[in-house]
Amino acid sequence: MTTDFARGLEGVIAGQTAVSIIDEDAGGLQYRGYPLNELTDRATFDEVAYLLLRGELPNAASLQAYRQDLRRLRALPAGLKAVLELLPKTAHPMDVLRTGCSVLGCLEPETAKEPGFHVADRLLAIFPGMLMYWYAHAHHGRRLVIDAPSPSIAGQFLHLLHGRPPDALHLQALEASLILYAEHEFNASTFTARTVTSTLSDFYSAVTAAIGALRGPLHGGANEAAMDLIDSYRTPDEAEAGIMGRLGRKEKIMGFGHRVYKHRDPRSDVIKVWAQRLASMSDDGGRQFAVAERIEQVLRREKQLFPNLDFYSAVVYNRMAIPTFLFTPLFVMARVAGWSAHILEQRSDNRLIRPMSVYTGPALRKVKPLADR
Amino acid sequence: MTTDFARGLEGVIAGQTAVSIIDEDAGGLQYRGYPLNELTDRATFDEVAYLLLRGELPNAASLQAYRQDLRRLRALPAGLKAVLELLPKTAHPMDVLRTGCSVLGCLEPETAKEPGFHVADRLLAIFPGMLMYWYAHAHHGRRLVIDAPSPSIAGQFLHLLHGRPPDALHLQALEASLILYAEHEFNASTFTARTVTSTLSDFYSAVTAAIGALRGPLHGGANEAAMDLIDSYRTPDEAEAGIMGRLGRKEKIMGFGHRVYKHRDPRSDVIKVWAQRLASMSDDGGRQFAVAERIEQVLRREKQLFPNLDFYSAVVYNRMAIPTFLFTPLFVMARVAGWSAHILEQRSDNRLIRPMSVYTGPALRKVKPLADR
Repeated sequence: MTTDFARGLEGVIAGQTAVSIIDEDAGGLQYRGYPLNELTDRATFDEVAYLLLRGELPNAASLQAYRQDLRRLRALPAGLKAVLELLPKTAHPMDVLRTGCSVLGCLEPETAKEPGFHVADRLLAIFPGMLMYWYAHAHHGRRLVIDAPSPSIAGQFLHLLHGRPPDALHLQALEASLILYAEHEFNASTFTARTVTSTLSDFYSAVTAAIGALRGPLHGGANEAAMDLIDSYRTPDEAEAGIMGRLGRKEKIMGFGHRVYKHRDPRSDVIKVWAQRLASMSDDGGRQFAVAERIEQVLRREKQLFPNLDFYSAVVYNRMAIPTFLFTPLFVMARVAGWSAHILEQRSDNRLIRPMSVYTGPALRKVKPLADR
Repeated sequence: MTTDFARGLEGVIAGQTAVSIIDEDAGGLQYRGYPLNELTDRATFDEVAYLLLRGELPNAASLQAYRQDLRRLRALPAGLKAVLELLPKTAHPMDVLRTGCSVLGCLEPETAKEPGFHVADRLLAIFPGMLMYWYAHAHHGRRLVIDAPSPSIAGQFLHLLHGRPPDALHLQALEASLILYAEHEFNASTFTARTVTSTLSDFYSAVTAAIGALRGPLHGGANEAAMDLIDSYRTPDEAEAGIMGRLGRKEKIMGFGHRVYKHRDPRSDVIKVWAQRLASMSDDGGRQFAVAERIEQVLRREKQLFPNLDFYSAVVYNRMAIPTFLFTPLFVMARVAGWSAHILEQRSDNRLIRPMSVYTGPALRKVKPLADR
């Protein structure tokens, strides 16, 4: 047996997918054949979730029917609310979503009769309310009524967060952001969901596991780290000096570079336009965006590093007054569409995911009885 | 880029480990250099958990100190009890453990200050009480007091389940069974835990994810399926006819064969001895064991298939009056030792686990505006 291997499975093909392709030469990322920038220009997140799950974009009639289904699926069962009320303010919001998803699997287990889409749609519809119910209870001591009339998932989230119908431009920016975050081939959380699914476990187990993977700062947690970085500087010049100092101390800077993309993250170009647009009408006179752009310039110049999706997403979310600790949960609300498409695909042609390892431990030795040790 | 790949990562090396080695030629499985059959003969599960986590077997003094630590860590926090009381009788016990682990991560989040061992020990100590608290509440409507005086994890479980100190032979059999289930290199749930850990996520996220993976019938769920199979026949002759019928209909039979072992599962030899021993003093006159043995004979003769660990484990658990739907949760209580050792090992030399995929979806196409679809 050879003992060569690629650390972190880098470059190793683990399976096939028809959900998306990352093709850096051909302009970036496509979801089921559609280029990402056309999707953010001409579709909303709900349409893209439908596309990822069902394989085709909806027309006006099927989109309307789908949104009606999703609205019906927003309600939180009483048992879930009771659990969310028991989770303290100090809990990490990703731990809350991981727990809420797992509880829902206890209350509404998957049945063999329903199509796999059912749990996917339920989770897509329920996550905004699940998160905001806990947030309102733990942070503001009130029981939120999940009745936001916004027809879309993005609109419901903003409405529940701010307690009023969303600003049209903010809504458009969040739709684009959720589309960009919705799917990304065999990333660590999606691969986790597929591995869990490969044991023929249930849908909730796979999504619960994926949330746990996304929580890590090398994955979804990067957008929160990027915000903390940007917010630590008051001016572009201060940012330049600060980043040079970090580079001198060889600190890792979150929101830059990517395992799969070698030259640029095509998603960053799309979200940067939104960051600039929201910044230009912002009450800070564009200061935060200028700081972010300087950080980008310094890292390009010094390290040939490019921003990934997480970097300017942080600015976009901050400009629409979303608290930083809800950034990664927003990633969950989007990526659950991709996870679900991959879970259904894994089921359709399953093989247990079970690799091998190289042993580096002690040689064979004898067990002494306890008295002789 | 090549598009060849091994389905399910079969035979692909995904990393290094010093925790265990599966060496079919050299007599099977070793935990940190110790052969499994010597461990089941000369150690208890608590000693093996210590070995897996700390790298060496404890001596009498360190074992006593470790058991005192674990006893202190058995207590369920009030918030966890309250959540467990909200999970219905209809919930799958694996969903209960997955949820309980996730809730504990909200109530007692990992801190940077404590050693990684701390959460591992907490989970090892708390799982029997967590499961039995829910079981007693959901199935018998009472709030269990988690005060079983048995010094070992296996003893505590049996005491809580049956409400009395465990029979000495049953305890010995369960210690052996938990040792056999404690660790198995890069199996699907352990690999899931390592993938989650590779994003630098927290300990609870990794274990919660692993429970979800273990739940599947191609992994931990197999011992329950094996019990249902054995229990579906009243006599060896009936089993023979039934199995021949299943083979004729090309049905998959759970508890036989293994991805990694090609000729025999060395763990099965150990647990079969225990199954025979408990069966010989059983009130069914050995009928159930005779049925199981005939199933083994028919599958060897007809398909050259060998029983894996799950098959005779089912008989052992059934003979000590453990309800079938608690079999896979018992696997969790054992395997959490192995998962934890792998989580700590992954952290000590981390690289994000992020493979690639081959695209099989639609070619590039244009997004039509909603009105034109």
